[in-house]
Amino acid sequence: MTDLNIGLIGYKFMGKVHSYAIKMAPFFFDIKINPVQKVICGRTEHLVKQAAESFGWDEYMTDWREVIKRDDIDIISIASPTLVHRDIAVEAAKAGKHIFCEKPQAMNASEAKEMLEVAEDAGIVHMLGHNYRRVPALAQAKKMIDEGKLGEIYHFRAVYLQDWIMDPEFPAIWKLKKDIAGSGPHGDLNAHIIDLARFLVGDISTVVGMDKTFIKERPKPGTGEKLKTMLTADGQNSEHLEEVDVEDMMAFLARFKDGAVGTFEATRFAGGRKNHERIEINGSKGTLVFNFEKMNELYYWSNQEDLETQGFKKILVTEECHPYIEAYWPPGHLIGYQNTFVNEFADFFKYIDEGTKAEPNFYDGWKVNQVLDAVMKSTESKSWENVESF
Amino acid sequence: MTDLNIGLIGYKFMGKVHSYAIKMAPFFFDIKINPVQKVICGRTEHLVKQAAESFGWDEYMTDWREVIKRDDIDIISIASPTLVHRDIAVEAAKAGKHIFCEKPQAMNASEAKEMLEVAEDAGIVHMLGHNYRRVPALAQAKKMIDEGKLGEIYHFRAVYLQDWIMDPEFPAIWKLKKDIAGSGPHGDLNAHIIDLARFLVGDISTVVGMDKTFIKERPKPGTGEKLKTMLTADGQNSEHLEEVDVEDMMAFLARFKDGAVGTFEATRFAGGRKNHERIEINGSKGTLVFNFEKMNELYYWSNQEDLETQGFKKILVTEECHPYIEAYWPPGHLIGYQNTFVNEFADFFKYIDEGTKAEPNFYDGWKVNQVLDAVMKSTESKSWENVESF
Amino acid sequence: MTDLNIGLIGYKFMGKVHSYAIKMAPFFFDIKINPVQKVICGRTEHLVKQAAESFGWDEYMTDWREVIKRDDIDIISIASPTLVHRDIAVEAAKAGKHIFCEKPQAMNASEAKEMLEVAEDAGIVHMLGHNYRRVPALAQAKKMIDEGKLGEIYHFRAVYLQDWIMDPEFPAIWKLKKDIAGSGPHGDLNAHIIDLARFLVGDISTVVGMDKTFIKERPKPGTGEKLKTMLTADGQNSEHLEEVDVEDMMAFLARFKDGAVGTFEATRFAGGRKNHERIEINGSKGTLVFNFEKMNELYYWSNQEDLETQGFKKILVTEECHPYIEAYWPPGHLIGYQNTFVNEFADFFKYIDEGTKAEPNFYDGWKVNQVLDAVMKSTESKSWENVESF
Amino acid sequence: MTDLNIGLIGYKFMGKVHSYAIKMAPFFFDIKINPVQKVICGRTEHLVKQAAESFGWDEYMTDWREVIKRDDIDIISIASPTLVHRDIAVEAAKAGKHIFCEKPQAMNASEAKEMLEVAEDAGIVHMLGHNYRRVPALAQAKKMIDEGKLGEIYHFRAVYLQDWIMDPEFPAIWKLKKDIAGSGPHGDLNAHIIDLARFLVGDISTVVGMDKTFIKERPKPGTGEKLKTMLTADGQNSEHLEEVDVEDMMAFLARFKDGAVGTFEATRFAGGRKNHERIEINGSKGTLVFNFEKMNELYYWSNQEDLETQGFKKILVTEECHPYIEAYWPPGHLIGYQNTFVNEFADFFKYIDEGTKAEPNFYDGWKVNQVLDAVMKSTESKSWENVESF
Repeated sequence: MTDLNIGLIGYKFMGKVHSYAIKMAPFFFDIKINPVQKVICGRTEHLVKQAAESFGWDEYMTDWREVIKRDDIDIISIASPTLVHRDIAVEAAKAGKHIFCEKPQAMNASEAKEMLEVAEDAGIVHMLGHNYRRVPALAQAKKMIDEGKLGEIYHFRAVYLQDWIMDPEFPAIWKLKKDIAGSGPHGDLNAHIIDLARFLVGDISTVVGMDKTFIKERPKPGTGEKLKTMLTADGQNSEHLEEVDVEDMMAFLARFKDGAVGTFEATRFAGGRKNHERIEINGSKGTLVFNFEKMNELYYWSNQEDLETQGFKKILVTEECHPYIEAYWPPGHLIGYQNTFVNEFADFFKYIDEGTKAEPNFYDGWKVNQVLDAVMKSTESKSWENVESF
Repeated sequence: MTDLNIGLIGYKFMGKVHSYAIKMAPFFFDIKINPVQKVICGRTEHLVKQAAESFGWDEYMTDWREVIKRDDIDIISIASPTLVHRDIAVEAAKAGKHIFCEKPQAMNASEAKEMLEVAEDAGIVHMLGHNYRRVPALAQAKKMIDEGKLGEIYHFRAVYLQDWIMDPEFPAIWKLKKDIAGSGPHGDLNAHIIDLARFLVGDISTVVGMDKTFIKERPKPGTGEKLKTMLTADGQNSEHLEEVDVEDMMAFLARFKDGAVGTFEATRFAGGRKNHERIEINGSKGTLVFNFEKMNELYYWSNQEDLETQGFKKILVTEECHPYIEAYWPPGHLIGYQNTFVNEFADFFKYIDEGTKAEPNFYDGWKVNQVLDAVMKSTESKSWENVESF
Repeated sequence: MTDLNIGLIGYKFMGKVHSYAIKMAPFFFDIKINPVQKVICGRTEHLVKQAAESFGWDEYMTDWREVIKRDDIDIISIASPTLVHRDIAVEAAKAGKHIFCEKPQAMNASEAKEMLEVAEDAGIVHMLGHNYRRVPALAQAKKMIDEGKLGEIYHFRAVYLQDWIMDPEFPAIWKLKKDIAGSGPHGDLNAHIIDLARFLVGDISTVVGMDKTFIKERPKPGTGEKLKTMLTADGQNSEHLEEVDVEDMMAFLARFKDGAVGTFEATRFAGGRKNHERIEINGSKGTLVFNFEKMNELYYWSNQEDLETQGFKKILVTEECHPYIEAYWPPGHLIGYQNTFVNEFADFFKYIDEGTKAEPNFYDGWKVNQVLDAVMKSTESKSWENVESF
Repeated sequence: MTDLNIGLIGYKFMGKVHSYAIKMAPFFFDIKINPVQKVICGRTEHLVKQAAESFGWDEYMTDWREVIKRDDIDIISIASPTLVHRDIAVEAAKAGKHIFCEKPQAMNASEAKEMLEVAEDAGIVHMLGHNYRRVPALAQAKKMIDEGKLGEIYHFRAVYLQDWIMDPEFPAIWKLKKDIAGSGPHGDLNAHIIDLARFLVGDISTVVGMDKTFIKERPKPGTGEKLKTMLTADGQNSEHLEEVDVEDMMAFLARFKDGAVGTFEATRFAGGRKNHERIEINGSKGTLVFNFEKMNELYYWSNQEDLETQGFKKILVTEECHPYIEAYWPPGHLIGYQNTFVNEFADFFKYIDEGTKAEPNFYDGWKVNQVLDAVMKSTESKSWENVESF
């Protein structure tokens, strides 16, 4: 079995999850290559050193360019803020490394397209980290839609609701900075549901959006502060408030190319909603509903049954016949968030082994960035925008 | 259309519901007789007078024997405490009145059997108020079981949970008095789920039970007190505590004649459970689940479907094809507790019009009382008891 | 107690519900006037005659103008198609009758404003049939918001989903005709959630919408056809398809005057959703969620509790302390759709008795019509529209 | 950091889970010792060899006695059928190895007591694999009960429902053999809920049970057969039916020492229930409800809140302040079945490092076996049995 050495850029929330998935993919799945946790990279030495130990990496480095320069690295896994995705991916691709990149792919569609072109020219395997495609319930949904169980799709209805920054004292971390994150929940959360819309229904043609920043100033992130989540930036001392220049919520209406209509909303101000990614799809023959807070369940209604016993069915997606489940536990024994990353890395390694195109890849990421851009433009133009103009 | 004059004995919670149902049965259903709210009866004159006005009765009386003596009364509806069911029913039957009687039918199986025999001799229509048989979702469940959708029945699992007397300051009203109510939640609540067990699965052969009184003394009901529910007795002044001589909970195990096994539990000490009558039936082909707190829903699982899309289906029992629903509203427009009484009185009037035997009737009530008695006996004998010995 | 004679215009679904509510308001509530079911009115004599009998009306008539002319009629209840609301209301107001009018109030904001002005000039009590304000769970929600339990409101998120015309063979009844109904689910369903938005959050300032007609031609309604719901028009013979000129769905984004943002969607093409009116409101201190398909429940999350035990709470709105519940049953005994009408008619009779302004009234209906008009305009202009321009 | 070498006996379902947990405990938790996956042991060489590779063990062996004899092994993890737990544990303890043992601890209370005594004499750390104590939601429940949030406990109500052997063609694997498994769902599933009853409420004093075998003969397990689960025995060829000599269901009533009452039921014949371990506890101040099929949720009702907003609260147990969660992901990102084993092995390693007594240990396992035995005896004696007689 071939060893493939991995360099991971980023060591916080996403870095931890990537580490986990890289380690466990061969435990659960029968994959033909041997992924080696070679080097983890981050700017703050004492923190990345600690991450290397906790997560089981052979080495750590502090400059991602040095990682890419190493001949013994075969794969670059990008788990850093959006701002640097393009630069890392472009250099990695030019160096012939296979790439796994977190979402959103880039700061905008233009960057994303460049990443796609360079990666294609380099002939590497490039994959985008839309892990929700690998939730067994959503992979099962995709299968059912492909089989025609929903008939013609009429409606796609999605919200992605969180509440982790509702406290006005929550500081202005990098995820609230336009120049680093690109946007707020739009790129962070809408990116996920836009990708799922494309995955499950198809391409979007036109959009109109509405955004709002509810809390316009927040404390600067402080060094000593104990923050509530793992999503914090490295500490910077400050006694002043900083402007929040990303949106706190973004909703939009959309028309799909094939005639369906869609509604989308992402917010970080829905109290009590922790990771409430909820999707409902209505077709001429049936309906599917999914909510990440109950990620092992898929709700299905079919008009093909007797009216007397019609109703929404709660499918507990833990049977051996369900996507990815054979690798895990008996029926009714739930899997968690972490397993979606194991699933996608297992597939990623398989794509590399077989030399096939990954799904989703930089093309998909570019299409998502186009929608993100069109929505943002529409909030300025106050009118509908065509997605393909971006 | 023939007028049939009704005399209603009792004017509190059950009296109100009976009044409602008698009034609305002809509004919702196409029934051939014309029920007339002739006379309502209760011991406390000023209260029964007020009830007569509010509920639309022509007259009121204070002695039920006088009501039965009247030639112009065709039907006696019994909504009084259990203690007097037997006496009223026996006299009414002898006077040739048709009878609708609330559950539990009697203080014990012996009384119940007497009621059955007298009523049969008199040739009247006798019906027992097990309204839950007329919840559309449960009538639908019965239909599905009769059609074989569950196959051979293995399990019947029922609890009836309430919490209205958990406060130790709640007074010792008649429902907590053995000499008036016969028992606590056993006769009040287990009677319902035993009847449903017989309705849906069949007769029970042997039982073993466990009871407990958590709060053994309570304040005597006071005259002036504003109590929390409509279930209060007429006021009696007292400054002392009274012993509670009925159980606060009763659970039992049961074997059905046809081989199924059952578990039953009734309690008034399940905090947060208001009227949580929950039933689950597992058969060789499927499962049904019902909970009265979501009374418009029936949950159904079938092993006849593809494993990939198997799951519990939530049937919203509000379609025209569902039992009793044609009388009401469009799909998704819920009905309430009150409608179950309209359904049973509409059927009662139909039985009278057609001269057919009612379901359930005093035979069914007797069978329920037999089970109640056997369970109570088993808590003394500390061993299994045969139902038919009672 | 004063008798007040009622003339009801319309005898189908809404006519039946109004009849029920008028009859039962005095049964459940202590109201000071005596509502008399004097005359019911409809164009098709044999049908209205039958309705008069079933629903308990003294007389029937076939011309609503004749009803209004009668001196012995005190109240006009309007349960006819939207097209004739304005004419009936204007004439009734001029004749000094109190008016209860179904929603949506009028074909457009201009008509609605005329109704308001005439009614105000006439000094009558005018009330609009937004019965959902009288769902106890929503009245409770209003109370909690008024008490500040949600803090500053950030989000209003509502969908009203049904599926009753998904079958392409379902005929083009009056509800699918622009000249009679004014619009499709927009006026039928969005009107409800717009009213609730105003009730619970406040006025809307700007909107942008998206509509779609999925099935553009349908069979003409035939005489003999057995249709699935009570929503059918009087039979007309035809062998041809007719164009559907109302939308099948309408979604819109909205900004509220006070800074909140809202999303709204109404559709008749959400398979499995029967009367799925779902509302979520997120404020700085808490969240409330309601779904009409579980109308006795209100979900509440508060950030005022310990994080360790925070969570969405399912309030079963059946306690005596909840709005309207004292009139009904003990805790856990559900009420149904029909009770919301009893509640609003009881309030209507109280307004008349006390000579106070009704809530909601023709002013509220006008405001709803303004929003409806602005949304419809925005689908043509393809840009945001100000509500107050209409 | 000290290396501690582990020998794992068993390599199927439980062997896989133990392997996972041993590997991941140091990834998620800060533990002071270094667990080494030294040797895995099973009787069938080609299968255990494959398991060693997949699960990352340095070596494999086929005789557990040889594993225990090795001086370089510090810990024995027992994941074999119940039949051999006693022998392995006794020998391992005598050899001074720390022991982690799967549940149920032994074939009966007598064996379990012997294990306890030998282990205590040897002074080793002994721990029992009741992983459900380490579900964060149940650890949180324990904390709330200890804090008095439920007041005096009245009711413990538990079912553990599965359906994996409902098909009569499912073969008679070792779990259906009394001489290997000891019992059916009683030892397999009731053991879990009895342990949770002790964990959350306290010791049980008397019991009465009811068992049933629905399908009394099944095919012998065949070599080539593709079975549905990982629970299969090593293949044995046969064309004949075999008797099933364990129960298919076992329910029992119980009285706790401190006055609470309990109902318990385990079955493998509840269609649609996959791993439905559901527990409800009612106390004088509150109620808690848990269901393993929604393992990240805990439902809580408190009577300490205003009646108006009382209700069952769904606590999503994914906050950093919840037990074990700090090791994992942000709020709303679910964990799975596997994490409960990581939690218990992390604690086990901590007990070893600190030299403290484990919870639960062989004393707890013995107490569970006593209850199991008393229930089984009661099904023969057909009367209540005292737990401490066993």
